[in-house]
Amino acid sequence: METELFVLILDLVGTFAFALNGGLTAVRAAKVDIVGVITLGMITAMGGGILRDMILNVQPATFQDWRYLAVAAAGALIAFAFSWVLDRLSGPIEILDAIGLSVFAVSGATKAMDFGLGPVQAMILGTLTAVGGGTIRDALILRIPSVLSEGLYAIPAFLGAAITVIATQLELYGMAAAITAAVVCWLIRVIGVYFKLNAPRPPQPTGTQDKN
Amino acid sequence: METELFVLILDLVGTFAFALNGGLTAVRAAKVDIVGVITLGMITAMGGGILRDMILNVQPATFQDWRYLAVAAAGALIAFAFSWVLDRLSGPIEILDAIGLSVFAVSGATKAMDFGLGPVQAMILGTLTAVGGGTIRDALILRIPSVLSEGLYAIPAFLGAAITVIATQLELYGMAAAITAAVVCWLIRVIGVYFKLNAPRPPQPTGTQDKN
Amino acid sequence: METELFVLILDLVGTFAFALNGGLTAVRAAKVDIVGVITLGMITAMGGGILRDMILNVQPATFQDWRYLAVAAAGALIAFAFSWVLDRLSGPIEILDAIGLSVFAVSGATKAMDFGLGPVQAMILGTLTAVGGGTIRDALILRIPSVLSEGLYAIPAFLGAAITVIATQLELYGMAAAITAAVVCWLIRVIGVYFKLNAPRPPQPTGTQDKN
Repeated sequence: METELFVLILDLVGTFAFALNGGLTAVRAAKVDIVGVITLGMITAMGGGILRDMILNVQPATFQDWRYLAVAAAGALIAFAFSWVLDRLSGPIEILDAIGLSVFAVSGATKAMDFGLGPVQAMILGTLTAVGGGTIRDALILRIPSVLSEGLYAIPAFLGAAITVIATQLELYGMAAAITAAVVCWLIRVIGVYFKLNAPRPPQPTGTQDKN
Repeated sequence: METELFVLILDLVGTFAFALNGGLTAVRAAKVDIVGVITLGMITAMGGGILRDMILNVQPATFQDWRYLAVAAAGALIAFAFSWVLDRLSGPIEILDAIGLSVFAVSGATKAMDFGLGPVQAMILGTLTAVGGGTIRDALILRIPSVLSEGLYAIPAFLGAAITVIATQLELYGMAAAITAAVVCWLIRVIGVYFKLNAPRPPQPTGTQDKN
Repeated sequence: METELFVLILDLVGTFAFALNGGLTAVRAAKVDIVGVITLGMITAMGGGILRDMILNVQPATFQDWRYLAVAAAGALIAFAFSWVLDRLSGPIEILDAIGLSVFAVSGATKAMDFGLGPVQAMILGTLTAVGGGTIRDALILRIPSVLSEGLYAIPAFLGAAITVIATQLELYGMAAAITAAVVCWLIRVIGVYFKLNAPRPPQPTGTQDKN
């Protein structure tokens, strides 16, 4: 019971952080109005979980519990109203966003296993839960999704999901394992932001040109 | 029975209008061939309903009733063949498109409630039914979806869906309530087009620059 | 039994070809890192089938059989590691990609009929299975999906799906019909690539300008 409450609170914190960051990204990157900021903030917060649930073939959890909708809408509205102030706080907001990434990777992988998916599939779905919303947002505002091109974003999410899955396979899953998985994901993400780490790019030994 | 026929006719009119307008938008905004015009016209007409049904976790209605497919294909084909004529009729076509918006907002919200979703969720799904197809089309032809950035499009759809939901909650739902909801949506949309109204943009008190 | 094995092998060959070609397209068209190449390669290979299964309202097959995931990941990884070499082999790779197109059109239409969809719907879903993954990839790397704008890609897929559906309706479906359908699709695709054939564009009798 207490565990569930703790997970719910973390999940709502993650939803809020994603909606806030998603709304701010929308304001920065595209000429959008209030409908756009709210829609894009809510898609950032809820899109990954909706994709996961579509693949699991169940009704999206965010459409069954009004609290997710309310928290996502609140985060997006705050982004709309205060984007000119919040843009100065990009550091703290990225740290908050990393909490969303961690929580969603762990809870997404857990839900995928609960619905009987195999271990690799559960790792993929956990990662999708964490990065899917931001990817849809970026496609809609015509940015190459940053998760595909720069920084460390999918990799810490995948590691968090993988630790969750492996702990479950070893029958070690519980509060401690979930927190470990989330903290590992969060730390790698934050270290990546701080040191501006990037995943490797395709090798190009002969200085190829863009041909397209 | 007569009500069902009336709703079916309106639904097909909306499907036709969306396919026609979607196909014309595709021709105008991007270098597409006949496959592109038909695909984008049909996605505009059926995409919102498909997204709604994916979230409701049921097979899309448009894949079960061939009449929707036929009407959507016809609208898109007409757009392909006559885009050079129809482009001069953008006024009448926007009025027709507003009928699609209204019908889909009301029928989408109704279907969401029929499947047991809560009131706010039904309002969101009604709006998604109305604006989802055009949003997918815009993402595919690399336009920032206009619903996120200009004009009044999602707002009248949301109002139409909200009236539908509230009337149902008050046990007033029926033909009269559905028509009222659709007419309110249609009027606000048409007034918005006529007076070029826009939803508010994010406040920018200190002349911020685009930083991305 | 042998038929099933034959279909499985073809399906995996198609998955590999799509992942390889999808990964290479991603490297060529956008500044992506290893996460981007693998994600976009796997989306190209599995996206069409996932969309088909979402519309059929069943759990995506690619999430239930690890072999699809493994083959798709392998194709994408090879694209990542050897893109600078493989780019010189675009001819052979397009021929391989055409195998993927053919196999997915036939298997997609067959699965749609197995789940009770009507004939036209099954043709559409077969085509979607074949072209859907590449379309999602193109939207994510901000290209107008080539299937909507140039070459013959959806048309051979639709013909392959249509032959499959008609053969089934005439109770002629079996190994021979499936291979005929796939070969017709493959031949038209390859002929189209070789002669640079395009589908017709919207008629523009009066030299219209882009107005958007």
